[in-house]
Amino acid sequence: MGLIVQKFGGSSVADADRIRNVARIITETYRRGHKVVAVLSAQGDTTDDLIAKAAEINPNASKREMDMLLSTGEQISCSLCAMAIEAMGYPVISLTGWQAGFRTNSAYGDARIKRVDVERVLTELDKNTIVIVTGFQGINKYDDITTLGRGGSDTSAVALAAVLQADLCQIFTDVDGVYTADPRHVTGARMLEEITYDEMLELATLGAQVLHNRSVEMAKRYGVNLEVLSSFSGKPGTKVKEVAKTMEKLHVSGVACDKNVARLAVVGLPDEPGIAFKIFSLMAKENVNVDIILQSIGRHNTKDISFTVGKQDMERAKQALEARKEALGFDHVDVNDAIAKVSIVGAGMIHNPGVAAKMFEALYNAAINIHMIATSEIKISVLVDLSEADRAAQVIHDRFFHEVGVQ
Amino acid sequence: MGLIVQKFGGSSVADADRIRNVARIITETYRRGHKVVAVLSAQGDTTDDLIAKAAEINPNASKREMDMLLSTGEQISCSLCAMAIEAMGYPVISLTGWQAGFRTNSAYGDARIKRVDVERVLTELDKNTIVIVTGFQGINKYDDITTLGRGGSDTSAVALAAVLQADLCQIFTDVDGVYTADPRHVTGARMLEEITYDEMLELATLGAQVLHNRSVEMAKRYGVNLEVLSSFSGKPGTKVKEVAKTMEKLHVSGVACDKNVARLAVVGLPDEPGIAFKIFSLMAKENVNVDIILQSIGRHNTKDISFTVGKQDMERAKQALEARKEALGFDHVDVNDAIAKVSIVGAGMIHNPGVAAKMFEALYNAAINIHMIATSEIKISVLVDLSEADRAAQVIHDRFFHEVGVQ
Repeated sequence: MGLIVQKFGGSSVADADRIRNVARIITETYRRGHKVVAVLSAQGDTTDDLIAKAAEINPNASKREMDMLLSTGEQISCSLCAMAIEAMGYPVISLTGWQAGFRTNSAYGDARIKRVDVERVLTELDKNTIVIVTGFQGINKYDDITTLGRGGSDTSAVALAAVLQADLCQIFTDVDGVYTADPRHVTGARMLEEITYDEMLELATLGAQVLHNRSVEMAKRYGVNLEVLSSFSGKPGTKVKEVAKTMEKLHVSGVACDKNVARLAVVGLPDEPGIAFKIFSLMAKENVNVDIILQSIGRHNTKDISFTVGKQDMERAKQALEARKEALGFDHVDVNDAIAKVSIVGAGMIHNPGVAAKMFEALYNAAINIHMIATSEIKISVLVDLSEADRAAQVIHDRFFHEVGVQ
Repeated sequence: MGLIVQKFGGSSVADADRIRNVARIITETYRRGHKVVAVLSAQGDTTDDLIAKAAEINPNASKREMDMLLSTGEQISCSLCAMAIEAMGYPVISLTGWQAGFRTNSAYGDARIKRVDVERVLTELDKNTIVIVTGFQGINKYDDITTLGRGGSDTSAVALAAVLQADLCQIFTDVDGVYTADPRHVTGARMLEEITYDEMLELATLGAQVLHNRSVEMAKRYGVNLEVLSSFSGKPGTKVKEVAKTMEKLHVSGVACDKNVARLAVVGLPDEPGIAFKIFSLMAKENVNVDIILQSIGRHNTKDISFTVGKQDMERAKQALEARKEALGFDHVDVNDAIAKVSIVGAGMIHNPGVAAKMFEALYNAAINIHMIATSEIKISVLVDLSEADRAAQVIHDRFFHEVGVQ
């Protein structure tokens, strides 16, 4: 008996049958005695259809009007889901973002939630009504409709769960939970029962696209118990919480593979203080997100600085650097986007120095060359050739999960 | 230089080209120096598509959720229209019903406007921004979305024009204006330059489906100058105002034909006081709208009461009567839905007793039998066989508009 927030993504509400399935999950939770708030995304193709309609009329439409347009998607899926629950005989009401009290800043298309005024939601819950809320949207101080950008519905659900102090926030997706590696590419990948927020954050950043970082960060900040699970299988999923029960005996919780990586090497920089600052403040100005950074000694009293960026930023980063070649005083910029980043993540890792050695050994045995290495408290990442990425993830996974039993 | 409210119906915004056409009409008005508020319906098929989606999930969905669903239609057309105007380089903003301040009662699906809080609209107009408002919708005291029912967008436009004290409210449709008869059925039908509110009301009630009665009643009450015109032709339409210039010399302003009519005859009622009251309070309780009523002396100290209702109410009215056959003491109920009502409307009519005679003569000459006759200050209606309806409208129109010059 508690309060549960459930979030369903676009593929979970794609058509009438799937909406009925979602209605079943919600009402089963309700019948077990819980209060339920469900946060829904727009139906599968709706958002794309609306974007196409807009593009036909104005490819450069203002973000304000795009949000006005796109926010209808969730309003449609939510009212339809409420109708499905009505048909099953349960009390239910659907609420838009503004009706549910989502107040955001004014960054149309990528707004941040400032607060959630949950009076209306609480009133409905007090009446024992199931509440269906549009994800991904809110209103700003002008009462104009905003959307939250990528992963927005997850963030809506976690924010509601935080403000309502929900006992659990379940994120229903089309996968069963969080895996030790991408099961589409790595055989033997297993689902995790539990994982910490930090591990989840590292996995999300590293390309495991189950939960958006913003929602995990918010869940960590407000201590929201998350569960990632499938809306199709009906099986328990992966719990994301502050300290996972099994953390002590678990060194590595997962292997992630990110293929959207490009590496830039700025070669022959003068060996003087402030050069790294100059390069990365330039990248920040160009709005390029930099990931792994590596600095090495070059020939003739110079140094080289290499770093990775998303593939989409590679050309922009290169041009910005070359436009300042004289001021920075380097020799040339070398780029490579035929690479991938393979990482292992685990909360206990830092206390087990053998983990890194084991990872490198697995790659060495498979004759996979490592271009760069980066480590943090809970992860070790290596850059390898793109063509070797899946094999690298596989041999690392085999090494950690087939020899050491997980859970 | 003034404030103009323009309303565009579903067929006027059916696709991208038509939305661009509407954007052109709006911006041309704006370029002539006017402030413009445009009220839009949902795109042609949108509402039907949404209704079909709902029916697939729950054929008996609550009206509250239906309104939540259907109100997205206007939000889509309005944001798209705003984008089209942006593309033409004009300042514009789209507003939902609640953003534009439409407050209604809680009769979901058929709500009435209680007030329009126009602060936001005025703020935007002060900034010289073109304002696009979703027709057909508002919110009630719970902040839940409501829709206004049939003809709702016309009513939205007239209500806005009334509160904003607009100089003109233009209702753009797919016809050029108000005609002396339905041009699809009556040859020689001509467009009127002007018409009074009352005449327009009678014509609307009688089946000329250009403007919904609610909007005309509201325009009359608040003295809103209306113009009905085509969004395709670009020609001036019909002005609807308190006193039409040409009223004095005009006896008949139009011929209307309503085929959605059924006649009930309650035969053999006891000839005692209160019997009409009993029958029509029963009809009111059953929510049946009664139109023409005729009472005649029957045989053996009895009387017959005949009246017309909309076809959709015929069965319900009959069953309600028969369920009280004993209490009312009648012999039987006779029904007929193979009939139609043909009417002439004109403000000067009451002062010209020859008008009725001329109408009956035209029908007599054409050998068309009259079942019932009803008259009011500004109209004369006759019931004829459904199969004779179009011919009746034609011969009446010929008699009044080909012999007597109009305007």
